Amino acid sequence: MNPLDFTGIGSDTICAVSTPQGRGGIAVIRVSGPQALDIVQHRWQGKPLADMASHTVHLGHLLDSNEEILDQAVLTVYRAPNSFTGEDVVELACHGSTWIQQQVVQTLIDAGCRHAIAGEFSRRAFANGRMDLSQAEAVADVIEAQSRAAHHVAMSQMRGRYSDELKSLRDKLLHFVSLIELELDFSEEDVTFADRGEVTALAREIHALISRLADSYRDGNAIRNGMPVAIVGQTNAGKSTLLNALLRDDRALVSDIHGTTRDTIEDTVVMNGTLFRFIDTAGIRQSTDTVEQMGIERSWQALNKATIVLWVIDSTRPENLEEMAHDILARCEDKRLIAILNKTDKVNDITEVENQLKRLLPPSASIIPISAKNDADIDSLRDLIVKTAALPDVDSDTVIVTNARHYQALTRARDAISRAIDGLSAGLSCDLIGQDIRECLHWLGEITGTITTDNILAEIFTHFCIGK
Amino acid sequence: MNPLDFTGIGSDTICAVSTPQGRGGIAVIRVSGPQALDIVQHRWQGKPLADMASHTVHLGHLLDSNEEILDQAVLTVYRAPNSFTGEDVVELACHGSTWIQQQVVQTLIDAGCRHAIAGEFSRRAFANGRMDLSQAEAVADVIEAQSRAAHHVAMSQMRGRYSDELKSLRDKLLHFVSLIELELDFSEEDVTFADRGEVTALAREIHALISRLADSYRDGNAIRNGMPVAIVGQTNAGKSTLLNALLRDDRALVSDIHGTTRDTIEDTVVMNGTLFRFIDTAGIRQSTDTVEQMGIERSWQALNKATIVLWVIDSTRPENLEEMAHDILARCEDKRLIAILNKTDKVNDITEVENQLKRLLPPSASIIPISAKNDADIDSLRDLIVKTAALPDVDSDTVIVTNARHYQALTRARDAISRAIDGLSAGLSCDLIGQDIRECLHWLGEITGTITTDNILAEIFTHFCIGK
Repeated sequence: MNPLDFTGIGSDTICAVSTPQGRGGIAVIRVSGPQALDIVQHRWQGKPLADMASHTVHLGHLLDSNEEILDQAVLTVYRAPNSFTGEDVVELACHGSTWIQQQVVQTLIDAGCRHAIAGEFSRRAFANGRMDLSQAEAVADVIEAQSRAAHHVAMSQMRGRYSDELKSLRDKLLHFVSLIELELDFSEEDVTFADRGEVTALAREIHALISRLADSYRDGNAIRNGMPVAIVGQTNAGKSTLLNALLRDDRALVSDIHGTTRDTIEDTVVMNGTLFRFIDTAGIRQSTDTVEQMGIERSWQALNKATIVLWVIDSTRPENLEEMAHDILARCEDKRLIAILNKTDKVNDITEVENQLKRLLPPSASIIPISAKNDADIDSLRDLIVKTAALPDVDSDTVIVTNARHYQALTRARDAISRAIDGLSAGLSCDLIGQDIRECLHWLGEITGTITTDNILAEIFTHFCIGK
Repeated sequence: MNPLDFTGIGSDTICAVSTPQGRGGIAVIRVSGPQALDIVQHRWQGKPLADMASHTVHLGHLLDSNEEILDQAVLTVYRAPNSFTGEDVVELACHGSTWIQQQVVQTLIDAGCRHAIAGEFSRRAFANGRMDLSQAEAVADVIEAQSRAAHHVAMSQMRGRYSDELKSLRDKLLHFVSLIELELDFSEEDVTFADRGEVTALAREIHALISRLADSYRDGNAIRNGMPVAIVGQTNAGKSTLLNALLRDDRALVSDIHGTTRDTIEDTVVMNGTLFRFIDTAGIRQSTDTVEQMGIERSWQALNKATIVLWVIDSTRPENLEEMAHDILARCEDKRLIAILNKTDKVNDITEVENQLKRLLPPSASIIPISAKNDADIDSLRDLIVKTAALPDVDSDTVIVTNARHYQALTRARDAISRAIDGLSAGLSCDLIGQDIRECLHWLGEITGTITTDNILAEIFTHFCIGK
């Protein structure tokens, strides 16, 4: 099936392994669609599915296409509409060998299922009104979340807190429309019924609400994808040692209970429940070598992606301090700078270098002496980085925009409401203003999925994992 | 907890992730023990667990230690004794992020659970009489199974077919005891009640049954762990090309539906539902170089581990055929040999080399011309290897011994019954024969776990995965 073609959605019955890939004690295969119970019945030795009440579990045997016993399994029935997808759903918990998982999926396909494409279960949940689009998207975010903060924000969105705010915004916009429609109905008589002051106040309120959401994306993006932190400094200042010191505890914590895939993204650290992405850069030094200069230029470019910059300084070699400060400050105008005086273990008195630095840096920059090699003051540095990130405290009720698609729709909605406000103050006619409001409603509707296209939907759900 | 210390088993409540490691749509955390319902209740927002019937599922929210919402989850209750472990069991299906999985386990531990050690759920199922020891061991085998044959044999064992045979053996042995006890009771009066002929016939029947099981281990081991096949031949005969040709189709099949971990064991192939383990060896050639000779010696040693030997011959260079045949046959006395005439694409007429080979090899050896490079006759080679392996057809009712521990116990049981037969023919007294029978019963009891020690149990269950 073409992943972009969702036209057959809901008419057939799909199946997929929903648990993580690989071998384990048990694996769960999910089946959803109008034929779910019938198809599984063909492969089931045990109590007939027709006699099973919704939300009950039953022990029995799964059969292969030759009617031979494939596995002992626990079957759970969810009858429509009370299931994740809103359709009839059967979940089969079987033994978690990869061989069994393959065979169960194969035998279900032989019996009439289609293998689900990525995100298809969530897509059906959305299509059947079990959740709006922003909630469905949050399901994927919940599964991807690597930190407490990212998890809470995604949970809040999945539980509909964000949708509630959008719904309240929509209600205000509809109220706005009702106010200006009064005027519109009598526009030919050149009569102004609506109180323009009241309407303008409402428009400003809506603008403020949309702005708050759109502006939250800066933090939301950092929470979801990790706060970008660049580590810069001269060669041999101890950048890698510092990164290892920051990574160390976190790795132990993460791998404690359960294997993770984090090792493939090597330089992320969760601190205080938030993910930080460390961008290590090549050492910067004065050079006339063209190739080396290109490497240094790349370091400066990497710095551009960062919100926080850690400038690592070798305290035993303060010679180029002024020159370096000049270079870094020139590139850190919109960054938050932390100057790290490393190798304190090798310096008797750090005060002089520290004072020199204070004179070179603006008051907004922080200065902290550490010894990365000896793990000295690394905890203080962690606290300082977390404080500098200044991300809001979040729980599973916090509404923060984390999704680039939503951010784009919100900025467009804000543009529309801004035009409406300008139109009101310029005394434009209500039908022109009404157009801006309709556009604003359109963009908000794209977020929740009340207004959408198959292409947008396909694009969203192909980023899901299969089985969800 | 010391993994060797099982003394507290069943008195506390354990939890672990039971689904495969990593991230997925959903993950299942299993909780088992007397406090399972109470502990989960402390972390559950939804219908009270006390009001839930056994084998029902419920949607609700999991809370963390701060009573904040951790995840939306589906909870399944199994009340003792109708659960996998025979204890109260709660299964929590949550979203499958690694972060959530860690947090759910942590919050359950904070609420009073202990993290389960490897195999502890199965161990409890055994301790509570839900399955005997050989069935519990089969659970691990089912999860490990990489081929249809290995799966069926493990399924049969898990479903109790093997236990049934052992139970029938035990009944026969007890009948034996009852026959000789008659004599024993009156032994002081020097009266022989039992018909020694009947007793001897029964002993021989028992011996034959135990022998059949013990002898099945050769096939069972090959089915479970893979039939070992060595590939030997001169350098550049095309051994690696052949291996790749054999691997190719299988890989595509295995990775089709679901990711597997098979890539780490590089040289296994499933053919006709059976796993084959290919042992690639260094090319063999005449050499006076000491280092090279050592490498060649290792090739010959690898050959020792094989049941089947594939001798790959470069048909374009038949010069050393006689010498090689001599070397290989000297080391293949108890092996099954297949001589492969490779590179048929580069030879106009293979007949001469083939005839030369026929003269050199015994009739039991097979000869097959192929072109590994062009994939020519690879299917015929596959069929020939499968035929040469001569493994029995298996389904989920087949009883074959696959476990080294069982094999050891069976050979000891066979020794004991042999001694009893010898004793009967030598006219030994029934109390001496009775001792052999008791020993025979002891070894069979070790397999099913009616007779066992904590050390044996700990050794068995530590090889399980956590969460099962």
